[in-house]
Amino acid sequence: PTYRIAAIPGDGIGVDITSAAIQVLDTLATANGAFAFKYTTFDWSSKAYLERGWYMQPDWEAQLKKHDAIYFGAVGWPDVPDHISLWQMILPIRQRMNQYVNVRPTRILKGTHPPVAQLQQKPADLDWIIVRENSEGEYAGQGGTTHGHTAHATATEVAIFTYVGIERIMRFAFETAKARPRRKLTMVTKSNAQRHGMVLWDKVFYEVAKEYEGVVEYDKMLVDAMTVRMVNRPESMDTIVATNLHADILSDLAAALAGSIGIAPSSNLDPTRSCPSMFEPIHGSAPDIAGKGIANPVGAFWSAAEMVRWLGKGELDAVADQFMQAIENVTGNPETRTKDMGGSAGTKAVTEAVCREIERV
Amino acid sequence: PTYRIAAIPGDGIGVDITSAAIQVLDTLATANGAFAFKYTTFDWSSKAYLERGWYMQPDWEAQLKKHDAIYFGAVGWPDVPDHISLWQMILPIRQRMNQYVNVRPTRILKGTHPPVAQLQQKPADLDWIIVRENSEGEYAGQGGTTHGHTAHATATEVAIFTYVGIERIMRFAFETAKARPRRKLTMVTKSNAQRHGMVLWDKVFYEVAKEYEGVVEYDKMLVDAMTVRMVNRPESMDTIVATNLHADILSDLAAALAGSIGIAPSSNLDPTRSCPSMFEPIHGSAPDIAGKGIANPVGAFWSAAEMVRWLGKGELDAVADQFMQAIENVTGNPETRTKDMGGSAGTKAVTEAVCREIERV
Ligand SMILES: CC(C)[C@H](C(=O)O)[C@@H](O)C(=O)O
Ligand SMILES: CC(C)[C@H](C(=O)O)[C@@H](O)C(=O)O
Repeated sequence: PTYRIAAIPGDGIGVDITSAAIQVLDTLATANGAFAFKYTTFDWSSKAYLERGWYMQPDWEAQLKKHDAIYFGAVGWPDVPDHISLWQMILPIRQRMNQYVNVRPTRILKGTHPPVAQLQQKPADLDWIIVRENSEGEYAGQGGTTHGHTAHATATEVAIFTYVGIERIMRFAFETAKARPRRKLTMVTKSNAQRHGMVLWDKVFYEVAKEYEGVVEYDKMLVDAMTVRMVNRPESMDTIVATNLHADILSDLAAALAGSIGIAPSSNLDPTRSCPSMFEPIHGSAPDIAGKGIANPVGAFWSAAEMVRWLGKGELDAVADQFMQAIENVTGNPETRTKDMGGSAGTKAVTEAVCREIERV
Repeated sequence: PTYRIAAIPGDGIGVDITSAAIQVLDTLATANGAFAFKYTTFDWSSKAYLERGWYMQPDWEAQLKKHDAIYFGAVGWPDVPDHISLWQMILPIRQRMNQYVNVRPTRILKGTHPPVAQLQQKPADLDWIIVRENSEGEYAGQGGTTHGHTAHATATEVAIFTYVGIERIMRFAFETAKARPRRKLTMVTKSNAQRHGMVLWDKVFYEVAKEYEGVVEYDKMLVDAMTVRMVNRPESMDTIVATNLHADILSDLAAALAGSIGIAPSSNLDPTRSCPSMFEPIHGSAPDIAGKGIANPVGAFWSAAEMVRWLGKGELDAVADQFMQAIENVTGNPETRTKDMGGSAGTKAVTEAVCREIERV
């Protein structure tokens, strides 16, 4: 099949790494022969916004829906307030494309240098899948400001949790845990201090858990204590489920513990497949190094590998695994690492190395 | 003077470490001679709640206000849902006693073993004061649940940010930073995704910052990226200001990076001194080791030292410093460390060692 990909390079190094990802994806398709990619590239970016005043066309939903998947680079640029760039692009896409799950696998790829001594000795101790609720919670966008420019201004952020929203993410998390060798799920909450929505979150978790009794081992952590456990007992966890904000924070911490924020991938999934899912590295647009040809494309490649896995609906798992193997062969070689991984290779060199590995394996 | 202390041991190891703290505080007072402590001990605990159905008397505010400070152990017990225990005791105290600042110093005490390799080599690289907003934000307690027991349940958590609330915490943070040698403040936010209250948070920060231009160096971090910076570049920060929830999470991470959650202190301050401030270790009630005589009392002692500093209004800083020195002499000795710090000493042995050090220095 030919998969139709909506490519949104976005801002900064998003542009560098999206073209790197496309090059690698095409190499993969050619090497394999059984599938191909056809891209539509969207110029939705902060740069475009500054010129014309908008990010996406009014019919953006219909445009995206013509594709099988969305590949996203990065968004965010110093001249545009972040809450504008994000709420005019990445967050509406996640929400309106029904991408209610954000999956963030984290492990220590060959060649990365984890900062924690335990993980330097035993990199296998960190092998997590973070399942992030991606459609509601603290990112619902609700709330407002009253008396905005005065000394009695009051503003609210309203986090929304719905039974439906919680149940589907818990179910996805349990299924994810069940499919992994360790069958272990850790649920994160802050229901001690947040006594409404987070209490519902807990309640639905335990309800869904009943269906997995004896099949998936599960436990519950408060988000603050979770950071401690991630640092001190990484080996004690496998699959993790958390709210939109909690998982946002924990997945960055996870990436740092794994040795580099530049390698971490994320998949924004619509498990019902009624809309295209979106794949993006978790790093940002990194304005300071944008366009310099030195951005680490590994997070972009890993995200691309996850996209292949998703598109294949089980049929391309071996291909995705080979793709990952090619990436790790490259990160495992000191000659083909970018600066953030202790090397001196540029984006192009790493990209070409991955292409060669794909052709070889 | 004789300082009137409201002692609330609370639950679990809160009881163990509060009596240890009192013993040490009394030793300090006797050794010094110029001040004394008089305690009222409150039996507000989950155990009492399970027996009689309530934590605090209806006139709890008036009772607490008769004191110069509150010393708090821990709250939380498996038989009581956390959101009940916390909202019936610790959170109302913080809010109604006008303790709008929670100060959490973090550094690597002698004898602690930080998990990050960089900090094992250079423990001085981690020396932070986290200034936590303690009266509003995500802990406002607002929100609710509709259709609570059905499949269309919807619940909200409403975070409230007010100009007044933000301004006073920013001012406190800048003053704290200004009084430290490095004069450096890092402000944490999530205003890219949370576009109402967090945007007000940023706005007021920059307004207050104007008054400190050229005096305090400052920067802004997104909370997710902040975890990465804490792990990778601890030396790049000094004073940190964050919302109630963000700082809750970051201060646990900070304690983990510093090598032990058992040593970290916190001061809930009413900077106007119209109500008593409250001092508590950041660890919880640890039901698994409660009453076994093995809890690490160092966080309790450090909190007690901060209480002495606060009560002295500048006059007891030297005494508090000596107290801290005594604590570090004890943690520096492998013979007098508890299990969580790699030793085998019990609470009593550590407490007596600190008392001896206080008498000696
Ligand atoms: C860019 C931003 C809105 C985003 C988020 O907070 O979700 C990013 O941090 C992420 O983790 O994907
Ligand atoms: C016990 C709990 C309410 C508390 C908090 O979340 O503030 C604790 O985690 C802390 O950090 O003091």
